[in-house]
Amino acid sequence: MTTCRILVLNGPNLGHIGVRQPEIYGSAGFDALPGMVAEALGEAAARIEIQTFQANGEGRLIDRLEQARADQMDGIAFNAGAYTHTSLALADCLAWIGVPCVEVHLSNIFARTDEPLRQQSLIGKSCVGTIAGFGMMSYVLAVSALWRNFLQKHI
Amino acid sequence: MTTCRILVLNGPNLGHIGVRQPEIYGSAGFDALPGMVAEALGEAAARIEIQTFQANGEGRLIDRLEQARADQMDGIAFNAGAYTHTSLALADCLAWIGVPCVEVHLSNIFARTDEPLRQQSLIGKSCVGTIAGFGMMSYVLAVSALWRNFLQKHI
Amino acid sequence: MTTCRILVLNGPNLGHIGVRQPEIYGSAGFDALPGMVAEALGEAAARIEIQTFQANGEGRLIDRLEQARADQMDGIAFNAGAYTHTSLALADCLAWIGVPCVEVHLSNIFARTDEPLRQQSLIGKSCVGTIAGFGMMSYVLAVSALWRNFLQKHI
Amino acid sequence: MTTCRILVLNGPNLGHIGVRQPEIYGSAGFDALPGMVAEALGEAAARIEIQTFQANGEGRLIDRLEQARADQMDGIAFNAGAYTHTSLALADCLAWIGVPCVEVHLSNIFARTDEPLRQQSLIGKSCVGTIAGFGMMSYVLAVSALWRNFLQKHI
Amino acid sequence: MTTCRILVLNGPNLGHIGVRQPEIYGSAGFDALPGMVAEALGEAAARIEIQTFQANGEGRLIDRLEQARADQMDGIAFNAGAYTHTSLALADCLAWIGVPCVEVHLSNIFARTDEPLRQQSLIGKSCVGTIAGFGMMSYVLAVSALWRNFLQKHI
Amino acid sequence: MTTCRILVLNGPNLGHIGVRQPEIYGSAGFDALPGMVAEALGEAAARIEIQTFQANGEGRLIDRLEQARADQMDGIAFNAGAYTHTSLALADCLAWIGVPCVEVHLSNIFARTDEPLRQQSLIGKSCVGTIAGFGMMSYVLAVSALWRNFLQKHI
Amino acid sequence: MTTCRILVLNGPNLGHIGVRQPEIYGSAGFDALPGMVAEALGEAAARIEIQTFQANGEGRLIDRLEQARADQMDGIAFNAGAYTHTSLALADCLAWIGVPCVEVHLSNIFARTDEPLRQQSLIGKSCVGTIAGFGMMSYVLAVSALWRNFLQKHI
Amino acid sequence: MTTCRILVLNGPNLGHIGVRQPEIYGSAGFDALPGMVAEALGEAAARIEIQTFQANGEGRLIDRLEQARADQMDGIAFNAGAYTHTSLALADCLAWIGVPCVEVHLSNIFARTDEPLRQQSLIGKSCVGTIAGFGMMSYVLAVSALWRNFLQKHI
Amino acid sequence: MTTCRILVLNGPNLGHIGVRQPEIYGSAGFDALPGMVAEALGEAAARIEIQTFQANGEGRLIDRLEQARADQMDGIAFNAGAYTHTSLALADCLAWIGVPCVEVHLSNIFARTDEPLRQQSLIGKSCVGTIAGFGMMSYVLAVSALWRNFLQKHI
Amino acid sequence: MTTCRILVLNGPNLGHIGVRQPEIYGSAGFDALPGMVAEALGEAAARIEIQTFQANGEGRLIDRLEQARADQMDGIAFNAGAYTHTSLALADCLAWIGVPCVEVHLSNIFARTDEPLRQQSLIGKSCVGTIAGFGMMSYVLAVSALWRNFLQKHI
Amino acid sequence: MTTCRILVLNGPNLGHIGVRQPEIYGSAGFDALPGMVAEALGEAAARIEIQTFQANGEGRLIDRLEQARADQMDGIAFNAGAYTHTSLALADCLAWIGVPCVEVHLSNIFARTDEPLRQQSLIGKSCVGTIAGFGMMSYVLAVSALWRNFLQKHI
Amino acid sequence: MTTCRILVLNGPNLGHIGVRQPEIYGSAGFDALPGMVAEALGEAAARIEIQTFQANGEGRLIDRLEQARADQMDGIAFNAGAYTHTSLALADCLAWIGVPCVEVHLSNIFARTDEPLRQQSLIGKSCVGTIAGFGMMSYVLAVSALWRNFLQKHI
Repeated sequence: MTTCRILVLNGPNLGHIGVRQPEIYGSAGFDALPGMVAEALGEAAARIEIQTFQANGEGRLIDRLEQARADQMDGIAFNAGAYTHTSLALADCLAWIGVPCVEVHLSNIFARTDEPLRQQSLIGKSCVGTIAGFGMMSYVLAVSALWRNFLQKHI
Repeated sequence: MTTCRILVLNGPNLGHIGVRQPEIYGSAGFDALPGMVAEALGEAAARIEIQTFQANGEGRLIDRLEQARADQMDGIAFNAGAYTHTSLALADCLAWIGVPCVEVHLSNIFARTDEPLRQQSLIGKSCVGTIAGFGMMSYVLAVSALWRNFLQKHI
Repeated sequence: MTTCRILVLNGPNLGHIGVRQPEIYGSAGFDALPGMVAEALGEAAARIEIQTFQANGEGRLIDRLEQARADQMDGIAFNAGAYTHTSLALADCLAWIGVPCVEVHLSNIFARTDEPLRQQSLIGKSCVGTIAGFGMMSYVLAVSALWRNFLQKHI
Repeated sequence: MTTCRILVLNGPNLGHIGVRQPEIYGSAGFDALPGMVAEALGEAAARIEIQTFQANGEGRLIDRLEQARADQMDGIAFNAGAYTHTSLALADCLAWIGVPCVEVHLSNIFARTDEPLRQQSLIGKSCVGTIAGFGMMSYVLAVSALWRNFLQKHI
Repeated sequence: MTTCRILVLNGPNLGHIGVRQPEIYGSAGFDALPGMVAEALGEAAARIEIQTFQANGEGRLIDRLEQARADQMDGIAFNAGAYTHTSLALADCLAWIGVPCVEVHLSNIFARTDEPLRQQSLIGKSCVGTIAGFGMMSYVLAVSALWRNFLQKHI
Repeated sequence: MTTCRILVLNGPNLGHIGVRQPEIYGSAGFDALPGMVAEALGEAAARIEIQTFQANGEGRLIDRLEQARADQMDGIAFNAGAYTHTSLALADCLAWIGVPCVEVHLSNIFARTDEPLRQQSLIGKSCVGTIAGFGMMSYVLAVSALWRNFLQKHI
Repeated sequence: MTTCRILVLNGPNLGHIGVRQPEIYGSAGFDALPGMVAEALGEAAARIEIQTFQANGEGRLIDRLEQARADQMDGIAFNAGAYTHTSLALADCLAWIGVPCVEVHLSNIFARTDEPLRQQSLIGKSCVGTIAGFGMMSYVLAVSALWRNFLQKHI
Repeated sequence: MTTCRILVLNGPNLGHIGVRQPEIYGSAGFDALPGMVAEALGEAAARIEIQTFQANGEGRLIDRLEQARADQMDGIAFNAGAYTHTSLALADCLAWIGVPCVEVHLSNIFARTDEPLRQQSLIGKSCVGTIAGFGMMSYVLAVSALWRNFLQKHI
Repeated sequence: MTTCRILVLNGPNLGHIGVRQPEIYGSAGFDALPGMVAEALGEAAARIEIQTFQANGEGRLIDRLEQARADQMDGIAFNAGAYTHTSLALADCLAWIGVPCVEVHLSNIFARTDEPLRQQSLIGKSCVGTIAGFGMMSYVLAVSALWRNFLQKHI
Repeated sequence: MTTCRILVLNGPNLGHIGVRQPEIYGSAGFDALPGMVAEALGEAAARIEIQTFQANGEGRLIDRLEQARADQMDGIAFNAGAYTHTSLALADCLAWIGVPCVEVHLSNIFARTDEPLRQQSLIGKSCVGTIAGFGMMSYVLAVSALWRNFLQKHI
Repeated sequence: MTTCRILVLNGPNLGHIGVRQPEIYGSAGFDALPGMVAEALGEAAARIEIQTFQANGEGRLIDRLEQARADQMDGIAFNAGAYTHTSLALADCLAWIGVPCVEVHLSNIFARTDEPLRQQSLIGKSCVGTIAGFGMMSYVLAVSALWRNFLQKHI
Repeated sequence: MTTCRILVLNGPNLGHIGVRQPEIYGSAGFDALPGMVAEALGEAAARIEIQTFQANGEGRLIDRLEQARADQMDGIAFNAGAYTHTSLALADCLAWIGVPCVEVHLSNIFARTDEPLRQQSLIGKSCVGTIAGFGMMSYVLAVSALWRNFLQKHI
């Protein structure tokens, strides 16, 4: 049975989750992710390989996404942080690499009506779906969705 | 052990899912939901009670949400359809009834950049999170998230 | 020879035409419609069945449109009143029910440049055509157009 | 001496005032209104008949306003809630029924500069005046104004 | 019995209808118009005189409209093509010449939400009505409406 | 029993009410105000002291408001005229002086949809409430509201 | 023969014309105006009385305009400087005082496309005409126009 | 002594002034212009040669302006009608031909705040000045200004 | 070997290039074009036939483009001048005539950020490519590109 | 050695700093300024003469700035309060008086993203620099900058 | 004879041209460029040295442009990809390094009217010209233009 | 006595100050900064440690800011160059690292009204204050302000 390989990609200011503003983002870091996936998906988790990568630079994130294409990854759970709203280049990248991507956010960014710039997601156009507002669990739900997507293709 | 009671609420034009444009929305109707939840959540599903309701009218949806408050429901998975973008009244309702609500969409509405009106979610402001783009599975993920939210409160 | 069945659907504030502001909308009510159609279309009118329905609620109009789909109506002449400019839900409904619809208005709404909101028609996108500015005759022209559309399909 | 008949009409999410967010809207419900009017207007109150109606649906509010026209009511104190900002259909209705209407709000909606959508009142155009920010007293002031308006016509 | 004289005026890029993109605009040219009017209006058609004119230049269209005023034409069915959206000068002309004009379009331009510029009709303000979306039949319906308008004045 | 001291403050172009456009604003000047308050509030009027002040200059109005703070006035009924829409400085002043202020207008300014600039009230943000559209009676209603506000604090 | 009395009113930053930026505004001050009028209008100038007033404050300009109404002046040549673009209060004043006013500018403000704010004239709506771009001669042309207006009324 | 040669150029819908809407534009046609100039300028008029030209087409107006450059005209009084607001091509033309041009309008177009499109003058940027609102007298004032401009160059 | 026939089409204000503002546009006129093409393309130039046409009128440019379609030209190098930004009619024409068109500009219009109107090209949507900023050489580059396009089709 | 004379100019609502909202603006008033300058600049302070002036009126601030020009002041530290965002007249004044001006703010106004109107500084265009966010110290830093500017000119 | 040294600089997502979406961008990679230049420019190609560089990061592109300045390159053909529309920093860089730059695009980006963000080029302001829509040939045309620019400087 | 450690951080295109456009930015490079601080702050300068860092990449600047947090720096003087207007990611970073930051600019960016994009500072929201327009002295003033801020915390 083939393994489902998923890249959990994090953008700017997401390198210190668990430490940064824990009252907002919780005290769990990305190390906790495999455990949470295992708990949520049970046996299926054994067939899911998660790679995590974080970078603050737009260019380095594009480099990493192009690598994911070369590696023929099965899915991407991508929290682009502030680049969600400003990076047309990341949107273009997701549009061509051909790896299914789920847009992920720790908080419900669609609730931030105070800053108009934050109301639009430039990268959403190139994603299969969006999950926001559930803290670290947003990633777990994204992995679940990508896993199910993988299953449909590999039956 | 208490049961987690969840309202799956659907707005306008969502009364014929399974029949309407199956190439977009799939051929599964909302009857399939309990089975899918059971498959995804395993034993936990036994403790989750799902009520479903659909209406095309804004007022009737508000009536139903007020009922959910009176019934002290534990969560709402709400696909407001086109009202997502135009109903300030539904947003106001979610803001005061005090039942945690997850915004749900069958398709990834954040990818519809062709119509500016569809890029803003008026109700998002009053929701704990958003899940979009996974067809009927969007609801299953929303139920999972609400169940986990319920567990944290009832430990 | 099959009959061409047409729904004349009227939205909010159109329940009292003939009484309401007759200096603008004329003193004829919707009862006068069959007679006017007969006069305009001659013998063909005998093969046209007109059903009329009016509701002030957005939800009830969607309900009625879904019914028209179930009834396999041949065409709809729809005056959505103010919902023309605000109801994305009605636009979504027209987009999927698959019954040809003509947008109708008593006055020439495209001449109302004083209120920007009234310059856009949300439902127009889902209609085959638009007729505005001819009072009750707008409906007669719409029925003519739908009748001709029906003929082309049933030759 | 004729009686001045006034409809106090409330729109979406106003069915639970007194219970809903009392720290904002106070603990008095609409039952308290006649008493407050009596206290404020003294003897005149005996000549004022107040009917109250609440609905969450836009269509049902239009139905009720059309009824007010049929009943030849002398005035309307109307809190349209969120429909204030989104309902062109209610604005159109007020424009033709010919019953003087005062726009009423519990809080000072013109102070909510955080949401641009809430800064415009679509229905204001069809009202004789506006009173906002005084809680339940906003209604009392509106009734006072309508009463005075009634007196001028019936001297 | 007087004759009803109608100018069918066509603007830019409408000189090759029947040849240009027939899959969109049909294979009938403007020569077909008298026959279609005859078929639709029966005996009345004998009393209708149709003049057709086409020009690509804004100035020449204004010249022709001023001629229509001098000729005391009874009505104009005007498809201004792209000038519909950009020509304030044509709008000004229609506003003063005093000949009733119906705005005509082959396709339903109000459905073209992809280009905001095409959503506003500058000339609509000076027209008695608008008919769009019925191909060559749009003109026939416009002639019908102008004929009826003529009848009311000449009874 | 303490007296409730209220400043009735009028801004630009309000110095000639009673003379200026009486068909719009009525023929009563501000001299009539005490009498109208007495008639409306009965005995309570004896405990209300009204000071009136008018100036055409933005700076002089701010000076007067700062004086009201120094005098520890109990309330302000403020008709800022055109400054309502343009004066951020008056808004800032009302925000810090700490005297409850009611925004007052003779006509229903929220009905003037022809000039976008007049649709926003910059000062509303710093006021407890708004009353517009009742001519001189708008001031009487504002005084009533301030008086009631005063009572609640001094019981 | 009655005299035509004209107020030449200047707003902010116009108190030092002749000294301020002479390369833009010329070296002639407002003292030169009567001589220029005499030269341009010949004998008629003897029947024209010109009063000049300048103030930097919006309120003082309104005061002066109200005085012009009290004095029953025959016309106003008004250069409102920067208030042209920001003062709704001056616009309101001109709208009611009933003295014909010509908007005057030294430079052609309609050519300043670099600052959008300078492209709209708030006061123009209340003026009979506009003259801009001719330096001190703009005032002379305005006086000519007002004189001719006066003649038509006093024949 | 050289003659001052001035082109009075009129754009679309200005070919019938004197006949068109005389209640707005007066009953004088452009034939009256020389007489009015003579009356206004006295002896100087003998040295002014006025050529008049009118066309409804944008291209023909540019052709005529290019001719004015070839003819080394001394000034242009240009009423571009509706092209004032839409013709970038006319603006470009005025910018390079090097003949001083005064923008002229019969009515005070800056007072038409109901249509935003009419609030901007595209051609103003390329004109030395603007005169609007004085009917046929606007042209006389423009000729006066151009004559004075001519004198300064030819002393 | 077939000849590649190219229309070099110039719009408003481009009839005097070489004379008009030579410091911006250079002193070469369109006569120089064949020589420059010969120099740039060498022997290939012998197989390229260039027709040049200029008109100031929008309508005449459309006429000429329709002629190019009738003549089955192989390509168009089109500098629409100011119509680039305002002519929807030219855009519509290019969209249907089926001759490949390259948008050409003497200066780099995309660098003119001072006038928003100049930032959008309405005709670009219907062109295969755009070349701007190289003076007369822009046309040479456009001819090169069209020649190469021709070669690919005629191998 | 010449003295550097600096005007510290304060606009609306800045007359009570030290008393007004001390939790935001601190408890120091403008009397404290000379002492703070002395402490920050040491011996240099002896050569700096500070004049302070405050007014709530736009006109009076312009009067004072014109006086500063007449007095040949060496610099201005100007906190225009709310006029920063609304006064084109103050911007025009600073542009011509020729005295170097530093824009000063107690709080960091550029951080107030909640009110769009407050995001633009109209007067900034006419200032050499901007200092905001350091309370009373903002003025001290502005005086330091103006002093250094003075030194460079008087070496 | 000196060599003309040109940097062909490519931004984000342009590292896989030839492989990425060949149906849009063709199957030729940047290796093909020298051959295409040689074919197009003949002997001149021997005097042109082309350096190519690609990076996904905005910062690294600026680094490379600063290097081009240090290397005294003769020209830059720059395809900034998505940064064309979002990078003010790249625009600033091009504005100061003093090496002539041509903006290049594979497809005609000015035809993408569906996404407003893509309609503006931030970097165009700092470029001598723009070439878009000709695939790999766009680069060849840009090199031709830069070569000609070089020749003019080195004659 | 503890030392006050300050990071002087420079963004894109600021690596060559002193060489780049010296007529705008002066000929002093960042080496001159310590000397200027010493001169301005006297003895206090001995207790201030300044670290300088420059990068053209958004990601590397975030990396460096995160390092400043780890190093527990006492303050940051940050000139983000063009990222000031486009980088939401830098704004987010400043918002959470908890080191006081002053926004610094060499020129008065708030005076650049020609490019709307440059009128908003995205990072200002996360800064204690802003200093712009004083060349290298802007940094000295920022260091002064941070030093004073440091003193208040360490008394």
